[in-house]
Amino acid sequence: MKVNTVAVVGLGLIGGSFALAAKAGGLRVAGVDVCAQTREKASRVLDSVSGDIALIKEADAVFAAVPMEEYEKIFAAAGKHLRADAALFDGASSKRGIIARAKRLLGEKCSRFVPSHPVAGDEKSGFAAARAELFRGRLAVVCAEDSDSDAADTVRGLWKTVGAKVCEMNPREHDRIFSAVSHLPHLLSYALAGLMDGYDGGAKENGGGAKKDSLLNYAAGGFRDFTRIAGSNSALWSEIFLSNSDYLLRAVGDYQKGLEELAALVRAGDSKKLEERLEIARKLRMRYLELEKGGR
Amino acid sequence: MKVNTVAVVGLGLIGGSFALAAKAGGLRVAGVDVCAQTREKASRVLDSVSGDIALIKEADAVFAAVPMEEYEKIFAAAGKHLRADAALFDGASSKRGIIARAKRLLGEKCSRFVPSHPVAGDEKSGFAAARAELFRGRLAVVCAEDSDSDAADTVRGLWKTVGAKVCEMNPREHDRIFSAVSHLPHLLSYALAGLMDGYDGGAKENGGGAKKDSLLNYAAGGFRDFTRIAGSNSALWSEIFLSNSDYLLRAVGDYQKGLEELAALVRAGDSKKLEERLEIARKLRMRYLELEKGGR
Repeated sequence: MKVNTVAVVGLGLIGGSFALAAKAGGLRVAGVDVCAQTREKASRVLDSVSGDIALIKEADAVFAAVPMEEYEKIFAAAGKHLRADAALFDGASSKRGIIARAKRLLGEKCSRFVPSHPVAGDEKSGFAAARAELFRGRLAVVCAEDSDSDAADTVRGLWKTVGAKVCEMNPREHDRIFSAVSHLPHLLSYALAGLMDGYDGGAKENGGGAKKDSLLNYAAGGFRDFTRIAGSNSALWSEIFLSNSDYLLRAVGDYQKGLEELAALVRAGDSKKLEERLEIARKLRMRYLELEKGGR
Repeated sequence: MKVNTVAVVGLGLIGGSFALAAKAGGLRVAGVDVCAQTREKASRVLDSVSGDIALIKEADAVFAAVPMEEYEKIFAAAGKHLRADAALFDGASSKRGIIARAKRLLGEKCSRFVPSHPVAGDEKSGFAAARAELFRGRLAVVCAEDSDSDAADTVRGLWKTVGAKVCEMNPREHDRIFSAVSHLPHLLSYALAGLMDGYDGGAKENGGGAKKDSLLNYAAGGFRDFTRIAGSNSALWSEIFLSNSDYLLRAVGDYQKGLEELAALVRAGDSKKLEERLEIARKLRMRYLELEKGGR
């Protein structure tokens, strides 16, 4: 079906950026958000804006980009208001939990749902941080195994309209992969930033005076890059971690094992093996940069 | 003493950048490097360049910026060639090991040594990556407790000449602080990049086909930032880890404990406490950014 109007429910960083990009792509865009201030801002650029989700009635496709715990409400409302020929898709960072909720709440419209995950983000959030270029050249994962094929085609077309490259996966594969490349790094970053809260590295035992933040004064580039993602919305990431806990915990366990192996080499003073291990890691980083440069 | 000529031994990223900045600051700069290609490049911008460390005879101050294992050789040569009224300083990222070597090898000139650590770096290395601005606005830690006061003043003055802010510390305090804010993040980054080498997150058990690098194709911004420092020179970082192993292993242990606490909250599905912990981490990151913005 040719899409004329797309509705975006939740005008945060992801939904807002999608709305701006869809506008730029020539579509009519309707926006729904619970926050009056966000609606006020969005109404200056979108075609229609409302706090009432019934607005989705007018849309050929509906993109729901809300915090994880809001999806229940959205799916319940979509079960009522979504047109039978319209497509519904989400932007959540883990997929199995969302799909289970959709199956439970969308009723007979469940086959119109096309689980999606645009691999893009920013440590800033909210409509103010939204930008039409956010998805340009980025991956959009689509898990369409249980979706009507016309709905899936509509959603694939929309991701292309906003500049993303579509990639197909099953939900389990998605959650496994993103537990390792995204959810794990986020958890590790939060763990480091959390450790530094009042941390003195044992100063008291060594007679050093440790005032709060004293270590932070000496942190530099490595620390800054490493903790960037710890600046992300904590409610959102708490939900993401819990919604993918089985794969995430597995990845954490594998990471802990690897870290302990490195620590054991440091403890043993084994410079040769330690350097070998670091070199394997360095080469992996270089391969990643090459993949990124090559546009994958 | 007024410095007219400074010699830089080791024209890599740190030494090369220091040499360029000292030139820009109006000093005469002599460079020593073992690599003919580096010497060729450096001779276009420095006042004199040699492969022979005896060149340091002509210098009022000597900056040694070489890999950790090279310092023994440099100190032995400096014991012979360093002028009795000249100052000698290093740029190593951990201080106690360097100081022990200096005491053993510099003989009566030991008091002319002023242990230093400029808190600046880059994942690129070598003279080609050197730039005069590298130290501008960055900290230069000076551990001068056992140094002649005129030598310490000379070194402090040189760090200011290249744009750094001087900060005094004792060597143990230095190694404790940098184990946490720099060495630990580097080890964690290497551990993550190392984990991803051929990692499939359990794909085989789930019937997924995992080819090498398959996960890397889906990595995005968080992974990129997190593994940037794993692109650093692995021989150098192996040495840094080993030279500060006691404090580093302590920091690793504290980190592992914190990570395990987060994992336990994920395992228990405790969204409230998990979000609280993430929020503490997020605020710490925000404080860091404020400190950085305020120039500390």
